[in-house]
Amino acid sequence: MTELVDDLLDGDHRALARTISLIEDRTPGYRDLVSQLHEHTGHADVIGITGSPGAGKSTLVDKMAEAYRDRGLTVGVIAIDPSSPFTGGAILGDRIRMQEHALDDGVFIRSMATRGHLGGLALATPQAVRVLDAAGFPWVLVETVGVGQVEVEIVGAADTTVVVVNPGWGDAVQANKAGLMEIADVFVINKADRPGAAETRRDLDAMLDLTAAVEGWRPPIVDVVATEGTGIAELWDTIGAHRAHLESTGELGRRRGQRAREELTRIVAERLLMKARRSSEGDRFDALLDRVEARSIDPWTAADELLDR
Amino acid sequence: MTELVDDLLDGDHRALARTISLIEDRTPGYRDLVSQLHEHTGHADVIGITGSPGAGKSTLVDKMAEAYRDRGLTVGVIAIDPSSPFTGGAILGDRIRMQEHALDDGVFIRSMATRGHLGGLALATPQAVRVLDAAGFPWVLVETVGVGQVEVEIVGAADTTVVVVNPGWGDAVQANKAGLMEIADVFVINKADRPGAAETRRDLDAMLDLTAAVEGWRPPIVDVVATEGTGIAELWDTIGAHRAHLESTGELGRRRGQRAREELTRIVAERLLMKARRSSEGDRFDALLDRVEARSIDPWTAADELLDR
Repeated sequence: MTELVDDLLDGDHRALARTISLIEDRTPGYRDLVSQLHEHTGHADVIGITGSPGAGKSTLVDKMAEAYRDRGLTVGVIAIDPSSPFTGGAILGDRIRMQEHALDDGVFIRSMATRGHLGGLALATPQAVRVLDAAGFPWVLVETVGVGQVEVEIVGAADTTVVVVNPGWGDAVQANKAGLMEIADVFVINKADRPGAAETRRDLDAMLDLTAAVEGWRPPIVDVVATEGTGIAELWDTIGAHRAHLESTGELGRRRGQRAREELTRIVAERLLMKARRSSEGDRFDALLDRVEARSIDPWTAADELLDR
Repeated sequence: MTELVDDLLDGDHRALARTISLIEDRTPGYRDLVSQLHEHTGHADVIGITGSPGAGKSTLVDKMAEAYRDRGLTVGVIAIDPSSPFTGGAILGDRIRMQEHALDDGVFIRSMATRGHLGGLALATPQAVRVLDAAGFPWVLVETVGVGQVEVEIVGAADTTVVVVNPGWGDAVQANKAGLMEIADVFVINKADRPGAAETRRDLDAMLDLTAAVEGWRPPIVDVVATEGTGIAELWDTIGAHRAHLESTGELGRRRGQRAREELTRIVAERLLMKARRSSEGDRFDALLDRVEARSIDPWTAADELLDR
C-alpha cells in the first residue's frame, strides 16, 4: 500500500488508475489510502464542465486537455458518465482509447459511472479529485452531465464551473431550467459555427442581466468549435482570469472552505448511513417493515422506534 | 390539520397542493400529516416515465392523463423538473396552466424541483406519491428526466417504468448508457412519425436480446406520436398488461416490499444525517474542519473523532 502511495505521488498512471478503482469498489483499505494522500492535496485547480447530453462536453474536455499537453503541462480528467457499471465498458471505449494514447503524455482521463457507487457519487468524486491532486496535476477537470440533483451539486463544487450550451434548441433556457445559471462562472457556446449562436449569446446575456453578479464577476461567454479546436485557448484564458478573480477577492478560500465543510458533513452522514444499513439487516428492522407494509405503522414512527433503541 | 387530512382524503385539489407544499418546505407538522395518510395508501399503481431531456415526456404524460380523464378516471402526476427553486416558477408556467385547466377534471399535476429539497428528492418523491395515493388516485404517474443518479433511482422504484426514446440520434444507445435498459418495463418510441423509428426499434430489440427477461417479461416497444395522441391507448393497454404480469407472478409484492425497505432505510439515514448536520454546527466540528483545511488531519479521521464523542 505504501508502494502504491509512493508511485501515485510520483504521478504513475497505473497507480492512479488502481487507486481510483479501489475507491470506486470500496476495497478494504481504500480509506487509509485516501487519508494518506490528504496532506499532499490542495494544490490543484478544480474546473467543472457541465451541460446537457450531446452538448459536446467530452470533445471539449479532450481538446482542453490536448491544448495543455501541447504546452507541456499536465491535466487530470474525471469524466462522470451516466452509464451503469453493467454496460459502461463498451460505451466508454473511446475515452479509454484516448487514455491509452495519453498514458505518457501528461493527460490522465478517468471515467466514473453514475450508478453503482456505494455511498454515492457525491462522496466518490471528491476522493477521486483528491487522488489526481495528490499526484501533482495542476488542473483537474471534472466533467458531468448538467441534469440531476447530485450531478449539478458535484460540478458546482469546483473552483471554476464551465457550462456548455449549443446554438439554438433553447439550450440557454434548458440551462436555466436545470439551475446551471446559478453555478456558472463561464459559459461556452460549443458548435458556435452553427446557426443560432448569436441568439444563444443574446439569451444568455439577457438571463445574466437578471442575475446579480457574484463578487463583481459576470460570467463571460466564450464561442468554441471544439471539434476544430477553435476558441479553446480563449477558454483557458478566461478560466485563468476567473481563477485570478477568485484569488484577489478571497472567494477561492471561501469556496474551498465550503467544499471541505460539505465533504466532512457527507462523510459523517455516510458513517451514520452505514450504521442505518447495518440496523436494516436486523430482525427488528424486518419486524417494523412488516408492520409498515401492513399499514399498522407509518415509516416515520417505525424509524423513531428503530432509533430509540 | 385534521381538516386538511379530511379534505385531502376527499380528493380536494387545494388540500393536495397544500400538503405537497408542506412536504416540500418541510413545514413543522408535515411529518404527522404524512404519518396520518399512511394507512390510506397502497392502492395506487405507480407508473414511472423517464427519458432524456427533449424526448417529449411532458406531452406524453399530459396525453396519458387526458386519455384517462376522457374515460372518467382520475390520474395524479408528479413531474420532477430539473429546475431550481429560484427559477422554477416561470418555466413551469405551462404545466401550471394545465393544472388549472384540470382542477375539476380528475387530473392533478404537480411539479417538484430537483434542487432545494432538504433531505433530497429521493425522500420527498415517495411522500408526494403517498399523498396522491391517499387522495384516491388509482394511477400516479411520476415523470423524471432519465439522467442523474437520484432521478434514475426514483423512477426505477415505480410499479411499472416506461422509458421514452426518440427516433434516430442514438437515443437507444443513450438510454442504455444511462442505465435505463435495466429499469425499463415498457419502451415508448415517441415522435414515431419521424425518420429512423424502425432503426430505433431494431436497436432496442437488439439490446433487449442481450438482456435477460425478468420473470418472463420482455419489455414491449410502443410507437407513439404524443402530440397527436397516436399510440396512447396502446400504451395504457401495455401498462395494464405489465401490471397483470406483476400480479400473476407475485413480482408486485416483491417490488413494493423492496420500495418500503428502501424508504425506511432512507428515513433512518435522514434522521442520522440531521444529527450529523446538527453536530456540524458545533464548535467541535469547526475546530476539526480547520485542521482538515490545514491538512493536519484527513476528513475520515476527523469524522471518526467527531463520532467517537
